[in-house]
Amino acid sequence: MEEKMKKNEQKTAHKTEYVSPAVIKRLPRYFRYLRELIREGTMRVSSSELSARMHMTASQIRQDLNCFGGFGQQGYGYNVQYLYTKISELLGVGEGYSAIIVGAGNLGRALIRNSMFEKRGVDVIAAFDVDPQQIGRKLDGVVVRSMDEIADFCQRHTVDIAVLTLPKESTADVVRTLSRAGVRAYWNFTSTDLQDIDPTCIVETVHLGDSLMTLSYRLRSKEDV
Amino acid sequence: MEEKMKKNEQKTAHKTEYVSPAVIKRLPRYFRYLRELIREGTMRVSSSELSARMHMTASQIRQDLNCFGGFGQQGYGYNVQYLYTKISELLGVGEGYSAIIVGAGNLGRALIRNSMFEKRGVDVIAAFDVDPQQIGRKLDGVVVRSMDEIADFCQRHTVDIAVLTLPKESTADVVRTLSRAGVRAYWNFTSTDLQDIDPTCIVETVHLGDSLMTLSYRLRSKEDV
Repeated sequence: MEEKMKKNEQKTAHKTEYVSPAVIKRLPRYFRYLRELIREGTMRVSSSELSARMHMTASQIRQDLNCFGGFGQQGYGYNVQYLYTKISELLGVGEGYSAIIVGAGNLGRALIRNSMFEKRGVDVIAAFDVDPQQIGRKLDGVVVRSMDEIADFCQRHTVDIAVLTLPKESTADVVRTLSRAGVRAYWNFTSTDLQDIDPTCIVETVHLGDSLMTLSYRLRSKEDV
Repeated sequence: MEEKMKKNEQKTAHKTEYVSPAVIKRLPRYFRYLRELIREGTMRVSSSELSARMHMTASQIRQDLNCFGGFGQQGYGYNVQYLYTKISELLGVGEGYSAIIVGAGNLGRALIRNSMFEKRGVDVIAAFDVDPQQIGRKLDGVVVRSMDEIADFCQRHTVDIAVLTLPKESTADVVRTLSRAGVRAYWNFTSTDLQDIDPTCIVETVHLGDSLMTLSYRLRSKEDV
């Protein structure tokens, strides 16, 4: 069975194919572990080594990597740098996407200062807020501008991603403005359902509250046992 | 079919049963929408009204709520307050869990100041950091203590949840200390795999970087079309 999979990998190399949503969801995880291997100076890795690190079965790993054109060679393993570059490309890391932070409150400011954008090749080009105390501030080179300028700014610059860290109540209005100005993707930290506002937009929602509740639920369930 | 489900709901009321992980994952979402209804002063809601709001099928909603003892009455709808209370209980909102923030950097400080803990009934009792500039500060009533005190603090106080917002490099050591001091649940913002460190702990991981990458992937895929 595993033998057969390896053969398939060879066969499908250099072929771009359909990548299932389940695999896509795992790609950032591969990206993260591969980056770690690169940092450690590892050049080659076998599916069983990756398996031990990533707590996934070797067979699952081979199947996943096969999905987008396998790069494994039997008895030789994967070329870490090649795999990393390929997955980075697939994830759009080299696209040079630009983002704005909408809402420079505590969370917005924490995100600006986080190295995550840089590491993922996303360029934060501005932040926006309504608070006069924040407007004009510069955080890690990013200027906080008045929310009143946001439509104009998005028309003059290419803005690929809007990071929404503003209060829930203001979200709908701002998203309407951004959509009109051509913004298509939202990284949504408000618990607003954006599909109601712009059904065509691409949204990735981070529900911090939901995540915390899932944790308490699991803690409580364990205590009941 | 729907008729039958409604009857089942009546039958299973007041019975506590097995709740599937898929339903558990959706509970915080129900909690959020029900809280909204309460704020709006809505007393009763039908599965079809909830369906329109939550972008889920009415049949799915009835099935979910049925899982933990249905509360619906045909032609009458759900009692919003009862449902909210019941789901809050299930989620452990009233348990009065206490949490500490480990790492009072930008993200840790943003979380302390976020109302999310209070809203979910989790009490943040302390924060810890290694930075002398942070130690001694008070953020929204929460004192930042020296990381050196963390083991002692956890032994003297009940700490249900540790929120990990510290650098990846320091995570393993700190988690070992916390586990020894009896902490069992982690809300993990570092990209460290905690199961390697303490296989028995309860972990909920927030992978901000992964979420950002999934968004760029989807943006890129849409552009390719």
